[in-house]
Amino acid sequence: MTATATSKKIKAGILGASGYTGAEAMRLLLRHPSVELTLLTADRKAGQSVEEVYPHLGGYGLPDMVSVEDADWNSVDVVFCGLPHGTTQEIIATLPKTVKVVDMSADFRLRDPKTYAEWYGGEHTALDLQKEAVYGLTELYRDQVRDARLVACPGCYPTATLIALLPLVEAGLVDPLDLVIDAKSGVSGAGRGLKQNTLFCEAGEGLSPYAVASHRHAPEIEQEVAKFAGLAAADVRVNFVPHLVPMSRGELVTCHVRLSERKTAADLRSEFENRYQGEPFVRVLSAGAIPQTQMVRGSNNCVIGVFEDRIPGRALVIAAIDNLVKGSSGQAIQNMNLMFGLEETAGLEQAPLFP
Amino acid sequence: MTATATSKKIKAGILGASGYTGAEAMRLLLRHPSVELTLLTADRKAGQSVEEVYPHLGGYGLPDMVSVEDADWNSVDVVFCGLPHGTTQEIIATLPKTVKVVDMSADFRLRDPKTYAEWYGGEHTALDLQKEAVYGLTELYRDQVRDARLVACPGCYPTATLIALLPLVEAGLVDPLDLVIDAKSGVSGAGRGLKQNTLFCEAGEGLSPYAVASHRHAPEIEQEVAKFAGLAAADVRVNFVPHLVPMSRGELVTCHVRLSERKTAADLRSEFENRYQGEPFVRVLSAGAIPQTQMVRGSNNCVIGVFEDRIPGRALVIAAIDNLVKGSSGQAIQNMNLMFGLEETAGLEQAPLFP
Amino acid sequence: MTATATSKKIKAGILGASGYTGAEAMRLLLRHPSVELTLLTADRKAGQSVEEVYPHLGGYGLPDMVSVEDADWNSVDVVFCGLPHGTTQEIIATLPKTVKVVDMSADFRLRDPKTYAEWYGGEHTALDLQKEAVYGLTELYRDQVRDARLVACPGCYPTATLIALLPLVEAGLVDPLDLVIDAKSGVSGAGRGLKQNTLFCEAGEGLSPYAVASHRHAPEIEQEVAKFAGLAAADVRVNFVPHLVPMSRGELVTCHVRLSERKTAADLRSEFENRYQGEPFVRVLSAGAIPQTQMVRGSNNCVIGVFEDRIPGRALVIAAIDNLVKGSSGQAIQNMNLMFGLEETAGLEQAPLFP
Amino acid sequence: MTATATSKKIKAGILGASGYTGAEAMRLLLRHPSVELTLLTADRKAGQSVEEVYPHLGGYGLPDMVSVEDADWNSVDVVFCGLPHGTTQEIIATLPKTVKVVDMSADFRLRDPKTYAEWYGGEHTALDLQKEAVYGLTELYRDQVRDARLVACPGCYPTATLIALLPLVEAGLVDPLDLVIDAKSGVSGAGRGLKQNTLFCEAGEGLSPYAVASHRHAPEIEQEVAKFAGLAAADVRVNFVPHLVPMSRGELVTCHVRLSERKTAADLRSEFENRYQGEPFVRVLSAGAIPQTQMVRGSNNCVIGVFEDRIPGRALVIAAIDNLVKGSSGQAIQNMNLMFGLEETAGLEQAPLFP
Repeated sequence: MTATATSKKIKAGILGASGYTGAEAMRLLLRHPSVELTLLTADRKAGQSVEEVYPHLGGYGLPDMVSVEDADWNSVDVVFCGLPHGTTQEIIATLPKTVKVVDMSADFRLRDPKTYAEWYGGEHTALDLQKEAVYGLTELYRDQVRDARLVACPGCYPTATLIALLPLVEAGLVDPLDLVIDAKSGVSGAGRGLKQNTLFCEAGEGLSPYAVASHRHAPEIEQEVAKFAGLAAADVRVNFVPHLVPMSRGELVTCHVRLSERKTAADLRSEFENRYQGEPFVRVLSAGAIPQTQMVRGSNNCVIGVFEDRIPGRALVIAAIDNLVKGSSGQAIQNMNLMFGLEETAGLEQAPLFP
Repeated sequence: MTATATSKKIKAGILGASGYTGAEAMRLLLRHPSVELTLLTADRKAGQSVEEVYPHLGGYGLPDMVSVEDADWNSVDVVFCGLPHGTTQEIIATLPKTVKVVDMSADFRLRDPKTYAEWYGGEHTALDLQKEAVYGLTELYRDQVRDARLVACPGCYPTATLIALLPLVEAGLVDPLDLVIDAKSGVSGAGRGLKQNTLFCEAGEGLSPYAVASHRHAPEIEQEVAKFAGLAAADVRVNFVPHLVPMSRGELVTCHVRLSERKTAADLRSEFENRYQGEPFVRVLSAGAIPQTQMVRGSNNCVIGVFEDRIPGRALVIAAIDNLVKGSSGQAIQNMNLMFGLEETAGLEQAPLFP
Repeated sequence: MTATATSKKIKAGILGASGYTGAEAMRLLLRHPSVELTLLTADRKAGQSVEEVYPHLGGYGLPDMVSVEDADWNSVDVVFCGLPHGTTQEIIATLPKTVKVVDMSADFRLRDPKTYAEWYGGEHTALDLQKEAVYGLTELYRDQVRDARLVACPGCYPTATLIALLPLVEAGLVDPLDLVIDAKSGVSGAGRGLKQNTLFCEAGEGLSPYAVASHRHAPEIEQEVAKFAGLAAADVRVNFVPHLVPMSRGELVTCHVRLSERKTAADLRSEFENRYQGEPFVRVLSAGAIPQTQMVRGSNNCVIGVFEDRIPGRALVIAAIDNLVKGSSGQAIQNMNLMFGLEETAGLEQAPLFP
Repeated sequence: MTATATSKKIKAGILGASGYTGAEAMRLLLRHPSVELTLLTADRKAGQSVEEVYPHLGGYGLPDMVSVEDADWNSVDVVFCGLPHGTTQEIIATLPKTVKVVDMSADFRLRDPKTYAEWYGGEHTALDLQKEAVYGLTELYRDQVRDARLVACPGCYPTATLIALLPLVEAGLVDPLDLVIDAKSGVSGAGRGLKQNTLFCEAGEGLSPYAVASHRHAPEIEQEVAKFAGLAAADVRVNFVPHLVPMSRGELVTCHVRLSERKTAADLRSEFENRYQGEPFVRVLSAGAIPQTQMVRGSNNCVIGVFEDRIPGRALVIAAIDNLVKGSSGQAIQNMNLMFGLEETAGLEQAPLFP
């Protein structure tokens, strides 16, 4: 259980390493053939070893946690940023320009500063960086990611939702103005912070909708749907209701869509098969097979299924991901691989864990 | 832990007592002040004690399981029927007419024999009984239930869905032809039979849609929506997608509805408040409060919430029940109480169990 | 869902009503035929309705939460005290002597003030009350409880452990100096406070021993074992290791005991059958049947099984309870019933909830 | 998601690939740099694709399932055998001697045929092979494993228990005749077969002891304890009680041991630190740190902790593993690596998955 290291490896840091996305980035990068973890920041855990903060990662020779202000930026080629929104933009703005940034926070996802301010409770303070940021939904923005210095990884819900909807919207197969997205997530999506609703006894043996039609991921989804539909963001509104499911990991979106004239569920499937042919992490299930979060746990995979609806003119698209991998740290590493010209799948090849 | 019994009590039997709905009926009836359990049938468990089949119910002095053919129908005033569909109609047809029947199976829910045959794989063999059966959604069919000899309790999903939708449909507040019902259930809804997908390791730590847009509860919902909308059943089609959630009990439906002209979410709430005023088991939550299955576990309660949608002209109605209580055995007892002129809440007064 | 109340009812208060034991006391007392809840205190939730603090208990007409200092002690005949230790003794000391007290905290369990100070981090400040307190393990202290004004309900682990061991120790059937108690509890035992280890993602899908051989319930068990063995408390030391299990409720103790000379597992069973004959809440399982927490969930029951060991001269005693009921609020109500001359089982008759 | 294959790779087959251990072997071997999966047998699933049997492993280019009788033994250099006991010995006896065998069943674990017959319900039919088999507890039998053709991997409980106890027994630090092993396992240990007690609703939200002091792993533990203590197997009896925990993966043993004269818990820790120094998969936790199954999920790691007991002269040793990895398929691959002269850690380097 000792970490191997060679001087030629890319030196990576994780900002906000004490959160679940930080831990997941550690887990995955520990096995990345071309990356060495040289910096872990966690302000409230500064001075602690990884073993103290995350006992499952003890024994791998990872560096101790330091505070952001004590970080040595010369020790890193790239940082994965898992800080709270707001904080993120401030810190990223101070980094040397030679350091590439894969941001897992929400700070650079929304292109319109007004929308950001409306949903995140304050003005954006790094608008220049914001313009430079590339939206890191890898399958749809691969070329831009390759050339980016700053990548804003999508939220977990937008990742699954947009993989399921953007090709259809772009191809004009579904109505972008009648999208009902019923979303379900495991509890890890809420982070490691102490909140009553994520206690075992509160979240266990129960199902809880939350942020009903008022979740921050809605405007993010709308931004991208509008872009791929050729509409103004303000003209697209989606129905988005997330539910907290008593499981640690996993995310599933059930998208109830209205088909365009004379289009069928089979047309949607064909579009997906063409669009995602050769994608290393997206799997379009054969007709009748139903996506489950159990199919992707611990992996960077996304599975998609398409179904006819009972209501004429409607169809269903269901997608499942692991919210901590494809929905966060895994996609971040996928983007980093592109940014550094590595094999896109490096460090992400583990198969799903089941049961 | 001894059962009390007086000669004046109503004598009740449970047919199919070895299933989860049977066990739940036992649990509730053990504390019913006016009912005595005198007959339990379970063909494959015939001869076994309740303790052998359900250890948690040992010590309460319940009768042993017998086979249906050995049942003494003179020993009962009412039977709760938790048998598989198909079997149910055969057995109920043979009962003395003096025995009232509260059917928890699917056999008498669908009024149109063709629809039954289409969805349940065979012709209905007790059409006379079927005509006599009252659909036992208590809050909407209370008067008919009072006078019924045979009550067909709704399916678990229809119970929650129809409590949430029928008043709105009847009042013309929502479009009955654009109902998107995203449903979630705990695993007990699948019964105690041995199936791979309900093993702990398969259903745990994961979320699985199933019977996507092809679940038998869809035509049942359509039948009632059509009736309350004044439409022909064949003209109503709903989008209905159920999901298996890693919890034992609980059911929640997220209904995405299209509002009628100039109607708002507030109008829906008002309608509910009027309609369900004084209902002992339906609670309309105040604005902002979100139904969770945790609010109703082990109780006969149903909680409802209404929410504005982001898409103009749409709204959300969310309802939660315990699938084994209000979704099955509890509602059955509620109906039995009406059929025998008892207090409607008798035996159903326990508060929810949380955590 | 309205609470019924008559002027003749015993007026009860719950101090610390915002915790899980408080909520459980509310759930049970709502259905108690002779008790009316007239006071709920919760300092940090003062001014809130029950529905805000515990949505599952909304709609039952319970009083709002008040702070302890605003409590009207004249409004109560009895208080159930679910406050943190330390706080408890201070507040109880100020109560009018006419108010009976059923304490669910740890403050009055240990008879030796030195032991209390050693394990609970401070001197006891109400030693007079402490002398008066009766240890409320109902089955073993029934007569004393009847006459008590202040009952100190045992800890959850001691409840299950002592029901399983005291009759054997008293009868000289097992060696009181070689008791290995391997204990397991659901997460609700840790309370509703925010702690990292009780988050869903931390406690779920995993098993965690804690307070290994250093849990505060060990000296409590030792006190009682010593008393029933006729030994000094200081001379008895038990091996006690608790484990956190990913379930909300339930507690099971696996007691590995050394038999006295020529005694057998069958002798232990006989002792139990004699001792617990007629007990309303203790069920000695027949040979071969194994206690599970699933048998008692939501009920005040305790199930016990006795087993031969493979090591000659040793045996096993396993007991299961619901930690929030028999392990806390249920036993508290059982004691209250005795203190007021009520039927011992009043309000506690609900059968276990399974699944 | 395509499997890579080169002609130089070791060709491996999995017999009984439709069980959980088979699936886990697939998951791990998919990422093994020197192994290619060329044969998967599953009699009842013969003809099915991996995707049909295990949807999470679809898309990796694995071969379809075949029946054992249709297996081409020339296509494999090694087989992992996850068949039911009894069946295993028959099939292994028919394999070409050039094929190495890593057996994950119970068939070759017990050296004494009488003990096998007593516990597994029938005479052993491959006694020659049985003599040749090496007990595959890697850390304690590494040299023998290297030279073996047939390795009998230990049961999951014996793996954790013996890693925790054998060094202490061998060094004379604990009494081999007073070992109390309180064991806990996730549900996957019971396999994918359909059994009532492993249904979600039966195993969830509950804790169930099973096979109390009568589990087949007890004689296996006794065999090894006796061997390392220099005693006859018949003279050693251990107390072994397993419990089913509501989690899919993970196993933890709490070993209550009696110290030898003048020995302390610190002596046990020193012994472990010496003994397991440099072991790639065994981690001795620092004083005070408590093993949890959450520390090892999905990994081949074993964590051990040592604790003082309250009873003088006793101590506690706690060990945790993932029952499907170190407790089964992971250890099998570890052994295969040794048998083929590969790096012992090949294919087993993934870090634990948490949360």
